[in-house]
Amino acid sequence: MNSSIIRYILGSVLKIEGLFLFLPAGIACIYHEQEGFYYAGVAAACLLLGFLMTRCKPQSQVFYLKEGCITTSLSWILLSIFGSLPFYLSGEIPSFTDALFETISGFTTTGASILSDVEALSHCALFWRSFTHWIGGMGVLVFLLAIIPLSGGSHINLMRAESPGPSVGKLVPKIKHTARILYIIYFIMTVLEIIFLLAGKMPLFDAFTTSFGTAGTGGFGIKNDSFMSYSPYLQWVVTIFMILFGVNFNAYYLLIFGSVKRALSMEEVRGYFVIIFASIAIIFLNILQMFDNASDALRHASFQVGSIITTTGFSSVDFNLWPEASRTILVLLMFIGACAGSTGGGIKVSRIMILIKTIIKELNSYLHPKSIKKIKFEGKAVEHEVVRSINVYFITFIILFSTSVFLISFEGKDLITNFTAVAATINNIGPGLELAGPAQNFGHFSIFSKYVLMFDMLAGRLELFPLLILFHPAAWKDLFTKKFIQKQ
Amino acid sequence: MNSSIIRYILGSVLKIEGLFLFLPAGIACIYHEQEGFYYAGVAAACLLLGFLMTRCKPQSQVFYLKEGCITTSLSWILLSIFGSLPFYLSGEIPSFTDALFETISGFTTTGASILSDVEALSHCALFWRSFTHWIGGMGVLVFLLAIIPLSGGSHINLMRAESPGPSVGKLVPKIKHTARILYIIYFIMTVLEIIFLLAGKMPLFDAFTTSFGTAGTGGFGIKNDSFMSYSPYLQWVVTIFMILFGVNFNAYYLLIFGSVKRALSMEEVRGYFVIIFASIAIIFLNILQMFDNASDALRHASFQVGSIITTTGFSSVDFNLWPEASRTILVLLMFIGACAGSTGGGIKVSRIMILIKTIIKELNSYLHPKSIKKIKFEGKAVEHEVVRSINVYFITFIILFSTSVFLISFEGKDLITNFTAVAATINNIGPGLELAGPAQNFGHFSIFSKYVLMFDMLAGRLELFPLLILFHPAAWKDLFTKKFIQKQ
Repeated sequence: MNSSIIRYILGSVLKIEGLFLFLPAGIACIYHEQEGFYYAGVAAACLLLGFLMTRCKPQSQVFYLKEGCITTSLSWILLSIFGSLPFYLSGEIPSFTDALFETISGFTTTGASILSDVEALSHCALFWRSFTHWIGGMGVLVFLLAIIPLSGGSHINLMRAESPGPSVGKLVPKIKHTARILYIIYFIMTVLEIIFLLAGKMPLFDAFTTSFGTAGTGGFGIKNDSFMSYSPYLQWVVTIFMILFGVNFNAYYLLIFGSVKRALSMEEVRGYFVIIFASIAIIFLNILQMFDNASDALRHASFQVGSIITTTGFSSVDFNLWPEASRTILVLLMFIGACAGSTGGGIKVSRIMILIKTIIKELNSYLHPKSIKKIKFEGKAVEHEVVRSINVYFITFIILFSTSVFLISFEGKDLITNFTAVAATINNIGPGLELAGPAQNFGHFSIFSKYVLMFDMLAGRLELFPLLILFHPAAWKDLFTKKFIQKQ
Repeated sequence: MNSSIIRYILGSVLKIEGLFLFLPAGIACIYHEQEGFYYAGVAAACLLLGFLMTRCKPQSQVFYLKEGCITTSLSWILLSIFGSLPFYLSGEIPSFTDALFETISGFTTTGASILSDVEALSHCALFWRSFTHWIGGMGVLVFLLAIIPLSGGSHINLMRAESPGPSVGKLVPKIKHTARILYIIYFIMTVLEIIFLLAGKMPLFDAFTTSFGTAGTGGFGIKNDSFMSYSPYLQWVVTIFMILFGVNFNAYYLLIFGSVKRALSMEEVRGYFVIIFASIAIIFLNILQMFDNASDALRHASFQVGSIITTTGFSSVDFNLWPEASRTILVLLMFIGACAGSTGGGIKVSRIMILIKTIIKELNSYLHPKSIKKIKFEGKAVEHEVVRSINVYFITFIILFSTSVFLISFEGKDLITNFTAVAATINNIGPGLELAGPAQNFGHFSIFSKYVLMFDMLAGRLELFPLLILFHPAAWKDLFTKKFIQKQ
């Protein structure tokens, strides 16, 4: 295990966080909020620690999948701990567990909050909450890859561990350039959303935080009623941008640099839109009678479908009160999630499509046992190894999910609350149903349950294995044994 | 496709059903019930049709997995349709859908009933309901294999399609002998249970029907309150026998003919008992305060755990009223199910164990990418193909499960009712929670939902693919094309 490079990257991550933390400190200056001192203080601490950790260059640049996973998990844990300190130290979130929960929820773009009164927070806290979504959406390590000069050819392992989806598509041969292109598209789309929101007369501060939350498919709002009180125009803008941020970013790359035809023929993107339109249509018919006019019903159906499938988690209405069929569709959408290569969470449309093709293939094999046809996706044969790893991913997901529901059931809350609280965190959505519904918050869970849900948020964002590996004894044995041998 | 042998086997199945139907007709004679005429009439019709279908010997004995699956599915559907006729014709269950639901629930050993007043039924109807469990538990085709002379070496495909579990273990080289041994063990254990129940002063009729329901891990009771009013002794006897019928029958074969040591070292059986004892312990502590004394709490915890993990579905208490942690454990046990090679349903302990080993192997592969160690189970390396098919089974299960919950959600019932109604039928258990709970019945579901749940019961009992294959266009195209060519 190459522990010196792990230390070096963790240090770099802290330096970046330090720089980012000056943004809320700046916001505090504008609004004359004294909470800003805590942000500046933690920023300085991050920078100092970061410089200490990166003072020595790594002895070797060799970097395998194992190092990639461990670095990614540790980066996200470190990022969350330091990111939560300003909330805690300023007293705005008095419990450390709650502050950590809020920050993990932010970075993992979940958007589940422990706060019952968001509007009581200072502007700098609200800004930082939303900004963590923006960083977490595309990934802090992808950001790192885009800006710092890391030589050695194996940094794909860092990106692989952090990027959502079954396989990392390198847009261009160099990882660094891929990372840069992704962040540029991400940045431009965020700016576009801000402009569209400002055009709808949304205040500047709201437009920024809303766009961060949409771009990262996060879901933290700055109002207690999430998005319910904004105008229909603003709700439509956010609906469209939520759906756009759930599209595989490869499609945008193709649209800009490659062929429009190839972008439009992407199987995953088509599947994604088919699911969205079908869900909106069914829910629209199902909730029609609850609203005064059809356009309201259509807007709320679209907003909620867009919000849940992209795992953003904004709400324009309390969908916990909707009829059972609509609630069930929303719960199913929670698991499907957005496209791979987007900022959204969930199992991902491409995985679901390949899983369904696996079932059809299995049925075919009963009829034609000697057939050796491979599964095709996006016009290409999918390697057995990819199919196998998707299968294992799904199995691990379901078992981790069931275990979490079991663990939090000891609190005695009802099954739907427990089931959807885990679904909303492991899929990085935010609100679930009942006591975890959009009009509620996660503050009432016990400390134990909160840690289970924090684990689920991180596991969901990092696609399970990079986080689970931290619990494998061999991962640590290796780390310390090698170190020991090196010292000798 | 060899359609002549499919016809021949279906005819044989009908003949067997005809013979079995004379049993309730006999019971009707004893109790002077005129409903018996309907049983005798349908029995005669089955025999007549069966003889017509088996008059011509099959042109060929060739029999592949495809034929095995289609034969099995069609046999079970035919069996259920004819088995439901006496309920319907006698007017005891006035709706055909309900009669079919009750019969499929019987043969698949689910035990979910549409009846609100079981005690109003005639003795012959009660007997037939329970007896369908006994036939369905070990399988009607296994019975067929045990008694009729079918030459040709490929009848393992028939058994493979009907027997629960990831792979069929032939106890002895000849399928016919394996089938006979299984039925002999099954018969002896059923008789033993009857004796133990009679020793507890249970009436003879009750002892027979209860034992049929236990042996097949079915769950139809002859009392409206299931098992709540029987004595603690009788509840303990049933608890122990439920758990015994959920054990892999290979273990009994080894106990009798082979080595005791090998039987006791079976990994699946050990896993099964560990899960049972752990669940009983947790639920016992969780419900302790609800009962006057610890022995009641222990008895009810054991009864419900035994009933649910073996997918029997008897209840000694309304566990829908238990605290959430206990309810959640029971829901999880529904999915785990009994051992492979037992009469129980669910995903099966061996599959769950292999799935967990698959996850551990995946984690290891992140740390040691070049390792090629195979998964070990029951002391042997598990072939990749077996692991793969278990993975696909699990994925298909979850997707079929989710689709079913979605389909029945349009009725507007609450999510827990829908979720556990599907869980209780696809896993062949019987009672779920809330409106599908042990103190309720399935009569209130719409006709559409009932057909969805019937499909789930059959899919669960036949381990998904044999039934799903009936919906594959190629299965039928093949059948008719080949026939056409043969005629020319």
